[in-house]
Amino acid sequence: MSQPDPASRPAERLRVRRVGIDTYRENVAFMHRDCAIYRAEGFQALSKVEVTTDGRRVLAVLNVVDDEQLVGTGELGLSEQAFAQLGVRPGGQVRVEHAEPPGSMEAVRRKMRGERLGLEDFQAITRDINDSRYSKTEMAAFLVSCAQTGLDRDEILFLTRAMLESGERLQWDEPLVADKHCIGGIPGNRTSMLIVPIVAAHGMLIPKTSSRAITSPAGTADTMELLAKVELAPDTLHRLVRRQRGCLAWGGTARLAPVDDILISVERPLGIDSRGQMVASILSKKLAAGSTHLLVDIPVGPTAKVRQMRQALALRKLFEFVGDELGIHLEVVITDGRQPVGRGIGPVLEARDVMQVLGNEPDAPEDLRQKALHLAGRIIEFDPNVRGGRGFAIARDILESGRALAKMNAIIDAQGRQEQAFGPGPLQFEVSASEAGVVTGVDNYHLARIARLAGAPMGRGAGVDLLKKLGDPVAKDDILYRVHAEVKAELAFARSLCARRSGYTIGRADQVPGPYVEF
Amino acid sequence: MSQPDPASRPAERLRVRRVGIDTYRENVAFMHRDCAIYRAEGFQALSKVEVTTDGRRVLAVLNVVDDEQLVGTGELGLSEQAFAQLGVRPGGQVRVEHAEPPGSMEAVRRKMRGERLGLEDFQAITRDINDSRYSKTEMAAFLVSCAQTGLDRDEILFLTRAMLESGERLQWDEPLVADKHCIGGIPGNRTSMLIVPIVAAHGMLIPKTSSRAITSPAGTADTMELLAKVELAPDTLHRLVRRQRGCLAWGGTARLAPVDDILISVERPLGIDSRGQMVASILSKKLAAGSTHLLVDIPVGPTAKVRQMRQALALRKLFEFVGDELGIHLEVVITDGRQPVGRGIGPVLEARDVMQVLGNEPDAPEDLRQKALHLAGRIIEFDPNVRGGRGFAIARDILESGRALAKMNAIIDAQGRQEQAFGPGPLQFEVSASEAGVVTGVDNYHLARIARLAGAPMGRGAGVDLLKKLGDPVAKDDILYRVHAEVKAELAFARSLCARRSGYTIGRADQVPGPYVEF
Repeated sequence: MSQPDPASRPAERLRVRRVGIDTYRENVAFMHRDCAIYRAEGFQALSKVEVTTDGRRVLAVLNVVDDEQLVGTGELGLSEQAFAQLGVRPGGQVRVEHAEPPGSMEAVRRKMRGERLGLEDFQAITRDINDSRYSKTEMAAFLVSCAQTGLDRDEILFLTRAMLESGERLQWDEPLVADKHCIGGIPGNRTSMLIVPIVAAHGMLIPKTSSRAITSPAGTADTMELLAKVELAPDTLHRLVRRQRGCLAWGGTARLAPVDDILISVERPLGIDSRGQMVASILSKKLAAGSTHLLVDIPVGPTAKVRQMRQALALRKLFEFVGDELGIHLEVVITDGRQPVGRGIGPVLEARDVMQVLGNEPDAPEDLRQKALHLAGRIIEFDPNVRGGRGFAIARDILESGRALAKMNAIIDAQGRQEQAFGPGPLQFEVSASEAGVVTGVDNYHLARIARLAGAPMGRGAGVDLLKKLGDPVAKDDILYRVHAEVKAELAFARSLCARRSGYTIGRADQVPGPYVEF
Repeated sequence: MSQPDPASRPAERLRVRRVGIDTYRENVAFMHRDCAIYRAEGFQALSKVEVTTDGRRVLAVLNVVDDEQLVGTGELGLSEQAFAQLGVRPGGQVRVEHAEPPGSMEAVRRKMRGERLGLEDFQAITRDINDSRYSKTEMAAFLVSCAQTGLDRDEILFLTRAMLESGERLQWDEPLVADKHCIGGIPGNRTSMLIVPIVAAHGMLIPKTSSRAITSPAGTADTMELLAKVELAPDTLHRLVRRQRGCLAWGGTARLAPVDDILISVERPLGIDSRGQMVASILSKKLAAGSTHLLVDIPVGPTAKVRQMRQALALRKLFEFVGDELGIHLEVVITDGRQPVGRGIGPVLEARDVMQVLGNEPDAPEDLRQKALHLAGRIIEFDPNVRGGRGFAIARDILESGRALAKMNAIIDAQGRQEQAFGPGPLQFEVSASEAGVVTGVDNYHLARIARLAGAPMGRGAGVDLLKKLGDPVAKDDILYRVHAEVKAELAFARSLCARRSGYTIGRADQVPGPYVEF
């Protein structure tokens, strides 16, 4: 075919305007309906455009604007994320073109047809997601197609590897770098803040990086931040960990498996619950963090993420398979997920529980203490010099002697002690038992939602304080739990939900469900 | 459980601000990060909020805003669609709450797990979609889960029924209301604008409502609009059709199966190609339009939507099953989809082809003429008084005698003649053959894209004029086709795509693919 005129690109450009809208992990561009250069609605049906300047380009979803105050006819608006990614200054000149869907969408469509994807497919998909080439609907299509056909274990391995390659990888230059991760779903489960000081006091390297809560009432990073600075530069973190043997920091300063965070932002609102995504998410983050030895905690219970023992055992096998293939020493522990661990749900309340345990106070929540000692003991047994089965006693000794508290204080000082004290939210209401009996059910998910509506974790003092646990006898009008908030509207949201359902079930002693667990 | 204080809703409200952004079928709300009443980031992770005022409510995706000029700390911004749907005036008072995902998402999650859904499930889903309760990612989850597991034919029936119930239904009070629909994918295929005048001239009722193009270069409504007004009120349309026996109008003024349009806006960009959705989409629209007898045209060819005869036959069976269950008399015709029909692609160029055929001009594209006569003949055979096989001759007679042209002019005058004349876009370039030989391939999809980039259909005169068709001999440098545009940037987009690939294949005469079709 003869070649058309090579001068095929329009000379005119639009001036970039930064639009102060945070579109949360999706690039959005704004064009006036009467744009001087392009016919705005011509882009709209397929809705993705490519914005280019000086060799840099971003993909964005296009919204048409009718208000010249927002975006003028000679301008292109970019949401905050798109603006940052393109790296152009306000008023800079850009071109707009129809965007091809990302090349890897072809692999997503194959998965939609039920086919099996290979390593290169997952690598292409994660690369495109990482470059913000995927709109939220395209990410939803990927996640749903994986959840539905299911990923077989080789595909989960490929996905994990691809997600790991999407970011940085930390190196610690020691043969044993310990880590721990809980699959989630159990509020108040702040065992990491006990395990790290105990294991570090033993002398094992445990550089624990955590995320902030996304949909739960508190993440380890949120709770630790009440005590110390958690956002530390990677080299600061390295030096600190070498001296203290451990840390409790936020994982976001090093870009560890960033695709994981992007996918989670679409996955959670859709309520997609996919084993493959879970395993890939956890292992890619841990491998990226440089861990060599990982303890995975799978709580099982009627309102936990995993409800039946056989699911937990299948998940264990999956973690073991992928972990072995990717060269991480992995042990899975199945734990009691019948109810929240400890008494507090929300950063301040959980930090209180943790400090009570570290201080060996008589009021310290016993279930939190026991669980932390068992898990810390299992991690201590990663040490080749520790005899199998001896870990619990070593951990208990470290805790009771005060060495764990001393180590925690050393870590806090090294990271940067938070001088301000935080208390539970002053706005409160209580939920009481309407009849006498025994507590036979405590709904993890419902109580987490109440704490979340009350404002946790952004409201640090917000959350729920549980006064009764499973198996406790209650009289009529005994207080079951207290809800704390910092903002009136949030107290009201929580109150509405409690009014529908408290999350507690009262019954007879013989109705208390037994635990499934190994210890 | 004891009841918490019933005064559980916050008293303060936000003032609504209308934000001039067209977010294209998704409600969006804008809240300032430092909102006076609510903590904006507290909503963000699950991203859907419920905005209420005076008993009315809308669901919206929330975006956080950092610019007080856009939305102030005491305000809630609403995108144009959300603002219209809530029906509140600017400055009106609203409350914001966390939104539950729509109840029917539970059914979507069942479909994601591979289960079969029932009629009530599809009804709940379409009801929620129609009420704008679904975000685009939730709609993507629904579409992908249906496409992947597939819908069995009962499910397709349920979905069709549910989509039909989502809007209005037209009544014509005659025993025979004829209609025709092509599944698409073949540019230039404006047979409707020939079939309607021919069939109406025969005396059969054929009130053809069509959509505007969504991703194709021209829809029937876009092309007809060059000749007459197409946006007519339902009662005007009724009167017109009773007198003329036919019309060629836009279907959007009556709300026919609105869920179909909403789903298409998510489906097309994702490239989801699902038989179930296709059948449900077409039949729900036709039944809503009040048709009793429908001719479905399925073009088959190497670059058509349906590439193999067995797929076409399976699709035919599906249409027949659902059509019979829903009480519409349906005939499926499999036609030649090897290349675009006629010469023009784009509204002005296609209208030219149509008027040439109606005027019995010697230059009229013969393939368009033949196809229109065959399909019109099949529709005429719906008439109980017409002997099977006689339809073609009747249709040809109506066309050659000039009665079809007279009827078209009568319909145009009745709808409201468009006095302005439109010509092909003045900006042009040509694509020529780089070697001699015979045209062995014309890529429907690629040429449609070129026409689309050139600006069709919003650029009425934009598009492609095909000078050579399949089987035509070409010499080196013969012009294959001419691209027209109205906007410089759009000519440039089209030129870029043509430079990569012209869409034509030149080879030997024995390489021309044969047609699969019934006639």
